[in-house]
Amino acid sequence: MFSFTINKSDGSARTGVFISPHGKVETPCFMPVATSASVRLLTSREVMEMGFDAIILNAYHLFVRPGLEIIANSGKIHSFMRWHKMAITDSGGFQIFSLPDSQADEDGIVLRSPESGVTLYFTPEKIIEIENKIGADVIMCLDYCPKIWDNLREIRLSVQRTISWAKRCQIAHSNMEQQLWCIIQGGTDLNLRKQCFEELEKLSFQGYGIGGLSIGEPWEKSLEIINMLTGMGKNRIMYLMGLGMPDQIVESVEYGIDFFDCAMPTRIARNGTTISWAGKFNIKAGWCKNDQTPLDPDCDCFVCRTYSRSYIRHLFNAKELLGMRLNSYHNLYFMSKLMAKIRESINRGNFVEFKKNFLEKYKQKEKKNA
Amino acid sequence: MFSFTINKSDGSARTGVFISPHGKVETPCFMPVATSASVRLLTSREVMEMGFDAIILNAYHLFVRPGLEIIANSGKIHSFMRWHKMAITDSGGFQIFSLPDSQADEDGIVLRSPESGVTLYFTPEKIIEIENKIGADVIMCLDYCPKIWDNLREIRLSVQRTISWAKRCQIAHSNMEQQLWCIIQGGTDLNLRKQCFEELEKLSFQGYGIGGLSIGEPWEKSLEIINMLTGMGKNRIMYLMGLGMPDQIVESVEYGIDFFDCAMPTRIARNGTTISWAGKFNIKAGWCKNDQTPLDPDCDCFVCRTYSRSYIRHLFNAKELLGMRLNSYHNLYFMSKLMAKIRESINRGNFVEFKKNFLEKYKQKEKKNA
Repeated sequence: MFSFTINKSDGSARTGVFISPHGKVETPCFMPVATSASVRLLTSREVMEMGFDAIILNAYHLFVRPGLEIIANSGKIHSFMRWHKMAITDSGGFQIFSLPDSQADEDGIVLRSPESGVTLYFTPEKIIEIENKIGADVIMCLDYCPKIWDNLREIRLSVQRTISWAKRCQIAHSNMEQQLWCIIQGGTDLNLRKQCFEELEKLSFQGYGIGGLSIGEPWEKSLEIINMLTGMGKNRIMYLMGLGMPDQIVESVEYGIDFFDCAMPTRIARNGTTISWAGKFNIKAGWCKNDQTPLDPDCDCFVCRTYSRSYIRHLFNAKELLGMRLNSYHNLYFMSKLMAKIRESINRGNFVEFKKNFLEKYKQKEKKNA
Repeated sequence: MFSFTINKSDGSARTGVFISPHGKVETPCFMPVATSASVRLLTSREVMEMGFDAIILNAYHLFVRPGLEIIANSGKIHSFMRWHKMAITDSGGFQIFSLPDSQADEDGIVLRSPESGVTLYFTPEKIIEIENKIGADVIMCLDYCPKIWDNLREIRLSVQRTISWAKRCQIAHSNMEQQLWCIIQGGTDLNLRKQCFEELEKLSFQGYGIGGLSIGEPWEKSLEIINMLTGMGKNRIMYLMGLGMPDQIVESVEYGIDFFDCAMPTRIARNGTTISWAGKFNIKAGWCKNDQTPLDPDCDCFVCRTYSRSYIRHLFNAKELLGMRLNSYHNLYFMSKLMAKIRESINRGNFVEFKKNFLEKYKQKEKKNA
């Protein structure tokens, strides 16, 4: 029902195919974020047509709203949101830990729901039960997220609990239609990361999420950790969680990352930031006022085939929500094409050249517009 | 370049074809509102695919934002927003009069722009110049809108100035690629309405907007005015401005109205109100929670072919903008199908029967949900 096969390697970068009950996923892959069963402003059909094989949802958010009963009544998450390809649920550990009132002990996490005020209790077993009812193809373990990235005592605790919770998740997990992946913690401490991976490896998970990055540490530090972990997990699915702007993706693919998810491309789209092959820019900028070219002249998405920068800038200025919608579509389409080009270059054995050319062009404009 | 032909009459109701430089418009027709060059949340392609032949925009709003220069630089309004069918601009008189700081005299209207604080001066000649630069197929005269619907002195003044401004608009209008339509004022006073129409008729406009309704008077009063005016304007295009919920449309078509525009179907869509053949309801209502049927089981739009009420209710509850988008699409699609069915019934000579059946079903649910 599940398998992961590596097709080609180019240095440490690799292409592969992950098979799930909802179809195959070509890797390296980027997963649009549909936290609450919706990729903001876009239909599932649009996201599928862009070429994405997988999305990621958030078990905690879905548990709060619409709740498990409503999803179960429409079958499972796929039929609820009419998404016919692979879906992953993140446990929502990161989101739970982000809430001001959350408190954790060895057994699990207590929090007061910001919506209802009710006290909620999440254990690893409870999270597996929730993810099971939501019904995604891949489900993530509950991990213990350190609140501060550079407090060694906190990081050590997070590694210890993340391992112990992963074991409990594995015991609680019995639905063979879902595959359970674990999450590696350890902050920026290479030894703790290594230890965390090794302990999880003993449990023979198929997929390893790299969690707890992008919470304040420098990107170079993240790359160091990514490099080490992918080196250790060559036979596993390596999934960099929660970060994946184009330049980060290209740089992480080089070390062997297979899965990405990131809310950034759609989040910044709603603020007017357009991702293009020549770099990011803000469509609200004055120089776009009379620009009759598309958002990205090198893009063939329906937005770029149809509308001018001038018009989309106007939509943002007039607070017309269509502006956010069009920019979100374009940015996600860009991500889909980027992943396709990355896979193509790996298969051809010229990924390093692709990376160099891509970054050169992509970062040039960022400098120009800075 | 422009023509209007009546095809069939069924009582006072009639079907016709209006020919414009951007294609033919089958009447009675409903025009979606694209105030600022966008039908909220929807692409022009979607609105065309739904079967709409025409949209209405607002000259005043477009003058303020994006401004005439930006539109002119992309050609005209059609190419700016990629709308390839007929477009009308309302002068924006109604919107200008709605601004708290606006003041009018015989010559025109002064106001302080709420956006820039700059003093703006709108005369009939200036409005024609603006509408000319925007480049819609049909442009509306600047009318004088009474601020209160039941002050006879104010209404009398509005009729007098509306006539005098219509004359000035006609003199200022020279672009033969645009057709100029006038607006009838007169509040709820049948004599003033009659007088206004007769004076405008002398100027031989092709189209007559009925303005100044739906500002507080009872609907029965509006129907009385509509009835009288359509009776006098049998050889003219009769356009009921700014109102057109399904029941109002069906009732006004019976008297011979040819054109409608109304922001309501999309505005209420964004608040969760769904229009269905069984009546209006709010998708956020508790009874939709586990409802696996589409928004409207009698609708074949892509939203109804794809999603459940349960899912769309969730989107609204989770403040996911996709909910507004899907509900807007459905409501507008409904309006398009309603107009098609109205035309069909007139052509078959059974409009009265259609109207009776439609209203019976449509108002039943409204009662049930009240």
